[in-house]
Amino acid sequence: MAKELKDLTKRSENYSQWYNELVVKADLAEQSAVRGCMVIKPYGYAIWEKMQRELDRMFKETGHVNAYFPLLIPKSFLCKEADHVEGFAKECAVVTHYRLKNDPEGRGVVVDPDARLEEELIIRPTSETIIWNTYRNWIKSYRDLPILCNQWANVLRWEMRTRMFLRTAEFLWQEGHTAHATKEEAMEEAVRMLNVYADFAERYMAVPVIKGVKSANERFAGALETYTIEAMMQDGKALQSGTSHFLGQNFAKAFDVKFINKNNELEYVWATSWGVSTRLMGALIMTHSDDNGLVLPPHLAPIQVVIVPIYKSAEQLDEISRKVAPIVEKLRNMGISVKYDNADNKRPGFKFADYELKGVPVRLALGARDLENGTVEVMRRDTLEKHTEPIEGIEERVQKLLEEIQANIYQKALALRESKTITVDTYDEFKEKIEQGGFILAHWDGTPETEEKVKEETKATIRCIPFDGDKTTPGKCMVTGRPSAQRVIFARNY
Amino acid sequence: MAKELKDLTKRSENYSQWYNELVVKADLAEQSAVRGCMVIKPYGYAIWEKMQRELDRMFKETGHVNAYFPLLIPKSFLCKEADHVEGFAKECAVVTHYRLKNDPEGRGVVVDPDARLEEELIIRPTSETIIWNTYRNWIKSYRDLPILCNQWANVLRWEMRTRMFLRTAEFLWQEGHTAHATKEEAMEEAVRMLNVYADFAERYMAVPVIKGVKSANERFAGALETYTIEAMMQDGKALQSGTSHFLGQNFAKAFDVKFINKNNELEYVWATSWGVSTRLMGALIMTHSDDNGLVLPPHLAPIQVVIVPIYKSAEQLDEISRKVAPIVEKLRNMGISVKYDNADNKRPGFKFADYELKGVPVRLALGARDLENGTVEVMRRDTLEKHTEPIEGIEERVQKLLEEIQANIYQKALALRESKTITVDTYDEFKEKIEQGGFILAHWDGTPETEEKVKEETKATIRCIPFDGDKTTPGKCMVTGRPSAQRVIFARNY
Repeated sequence: MAKELKDLTKRSENYSQWYNELVVKADLAEQSAVRGCMVIKPYGYAIWEKMQRELDRMFKETGHVNAYFPLLIPKSFLCKEADHVEGFAKECAVVTHYRLKNDPEGRGVVVDPDARLEEELIIRPTSETIIWNTYRNWIKSYRDLPILCNQWANVLRWEMRTRMFLRTAEFLWQEGHTAHATKEEAMEEAVRMLNVYADFAERYMAVPVIKGVKSANERFAGALETYTIEAMMQDGKALQSGTSHFLGQNFAKAFDVKFINKNNELEYVWATSWGVSTRLMGALIMTHSDDNGLVLPPHLAPIQVVIVPIYKSAEQLDEISRKVAPIVEKLRNMGISVKYDNADNKRPGFKFADYELKGVPVRLALGARDLENGTVEVMRRDTLEKHTEPIEGIEERVQKLLEEIQANIYQKALALRESKTITVDTYDEFKEKIEQGGFILAHWDGTPETEEKVKEETKATIRCIPFDGDKTTPGKCMVTGRPSAQRVIFARNY
Repeated sequence: MAKELKDLTKRSENYSQWYNELVVKADLAEQSAVRGCMVIKPYGYAIWEKMQRELDRMFKETGHVNAYFPLLIPKSFLCKEADHVEGFAKECAVVTHYRLKNDPEGRGVVVDPDARLEEELIIRPTSETIIWNTYRNWIKSYRDLPILCNQWANVLRWEMRTRMFLRTAEFLWQEGHTAHATKEEAMEEAVRMLNVYADFAERYMAVPVIKGVKSANERFAGALETYTIEAMMQDGKALQSGTSHFLGQNFAKAFDVKFINKNNELEYVWATSWGVSTRLMGALIMTHSDDNGLVLPPHLAPIQVVIVPIYKSAEQLDEISRKVAPIVEKLRNMGISVKYDNADNKRPGFKFADYELKGVPVRLALGARDLENGTVEVMRRDTLEKHTEPIEGIEERVQKLLEEIQANIYQKALALRESKTITVDTYDEFKEKIEQGGFILAHWDGTPETEEKVKEETKATIRCIPFDGDKTTPGKCMVTGRPSAQRVIFARNY
């Protein structure tokens, strides 16, 4: 492991390679034998579980319940909403048969041609269609509304270029699907859930995000509006970290879902959907980590504190272990997850490097001299600073330190984003500045054509029209000179 | 809902229909548009979530970690273990293409023939193959062992006859997959996890189970031994509720997974796998429920206590609500999930019937007279008994009552099982008694042929060779008269 760490590519040399290596070396995930699909390893999954737990709690606090809908979607369902099928048809895994059999010519096991499905089934790329087909039977009257369901599930999109966590064929996510009696209520819900995502990203992941609206080009297939949270990675590229969609009555119309409103009139139901996925793992890794490995926010770290004994004899180890036991117990009682690593087959130096690579926020080390002096060595992963301090009262100080690290890495990420966010007025300047990465605030005429031209010429897209952008200073589109109400955020992105 | 309840078929009339109706009427699940796949509705999913939470805790307490492996399995992997593919080939959903396109002849969207996969992919019916292909790279030395991974996932088996929860094409489950350096350790692990399942079934589901070994006919495809917990439903039929498999070195050999042991020799790794699924929901429903609807064990009930106000005016409701508020708060602080149903658009009688149908263990009702007298009406769902008692100290008594209900429904199920378990010595008597349902303890000669004959002639199978059966009284097989070491359990089953 210590050797592996030495081999980690530096961010400055090749950011992309650094990321790919880090995911594997820190034991988060690895490529599987199935094209574009990853194996999420226990350490990576433990982080995802912590994310799930917090998100699930936040969803329930905002009135949502969980349910489960089928993995497979009849092809005809997918086709009922025109934009939706247009958006997903090119990346669908299709089930055509339901049985294998022994090859009559003795060449092993083959697909049984007699077991062909009458209608092909698609592995869900997202579940609007199967869910709205179900909602039709759940909704008769305004009294059945709203429906506020969420689903934790796997989905599959046959992407041509994949990267672990950031873009994989199969990924894990949650998808909320809500049904409402009014347009206003649905729009409020879509914004509410975007706020939940932003809150989660900032308070738990320590990732600052910009909330905004997507342009038409970047909208979800089937949505009237897509809201997004956009984060900036250390290389200045944007990472779309969560989206929430106002779907209007599109899916209600496609699946004929009507209700009797309070005025006794038949009306189509209003919808939202919203999701975050294992992609958040990519955002987490790329925002905070450094050339020594992962840096995890304490609020999501599977191990928040590791304690490493430094000893020369079994007696010394015993003595240290006795000293450490009440500290471990007290930290656990405070709700802090702590690991005491007294493994005998690895040296302290190896352990230090390994826990740095794994991003454990706080490391305590105790040796013979510490026992004599009543001290302990404390190392914080975010700054790599270490110092020796009295062991008395260490638990409360560790608790404070964890919060300090959480706040510090958020501030650091925010400062980086601010330093890499610039305002640009001409397209020439834009073309020059976009090469340096970062977010560029520029005026845009609001047309898909202009956005498309910028994308083709610079590989930058509009990440969002920020909610809290300056709406009082209109300007002129940097490309066409046509009027623009507010600046939008351009960036290259993952 | 009150009307729906009236329509519930009685168990004595048609047990099977009673079950199917109850699943739908109690809002647990419904058929989806996809053949054999169900939608798990929020109320049903809330019970499953509680099951997951407890099981997950128990797995972690026994040293296991969660991970995630791909949904899709290359066909060639499935074929590497001969018994395994033989067991699953006939029920595999096969992905053959990865894209749809617009039909050139204008008939909508069709599968793109140019996007045919080189090798077909199977939707996992279980994950031994993809996981053991992964473990090959994780295991080099005895120091890498044991690996104790669990996965929460969906799986798919294309069953011809499906029933909600009991047998569906897609179902949710957990599958543990462990790797060990020795045979003994693997066998211990398989038994340990069976004990975890039994413990969960009895303490949380209040379902008594018999632990035992499967006969060769009923063994998991690829296992050397399958351990099982078998529960008895109210109609006397058995329901296999969880299995744990000792896989020997079968998958290690199929996927070439070797390790250097402590003697520096290269050896194949030993394996187990074990799983429980949403089938447990079926066991839960069928064990305890009655003609009025669900009966849920308090340890898994999403709502443990419901409080219904009975009032004639808004002032009365206000007064009741003020009285109820501190009770709700205190119950919640005690960790009890409680719902105060003050909905204005439903009458108390309707609410009563609805919560009975949904199996809420304890119902409290408060009316004007109760306010005057300082009393509350308490109804327990298991016995449907109700009585009025002082409101003072109700919280502690409710807590005790919940434990009493939990114990009572377990005892009731156990008594039923004991009353329906008989010992039989002749095949003639067996054929007569099996018609009445229940478990039959009989001697068997240990051959698959005899078991097969009994199955064909009576539809009964050997549910298990019980761990705690009488091993000191050998006998003669009821069919062939050949020697038998101990009695086994025969039953018809779900």
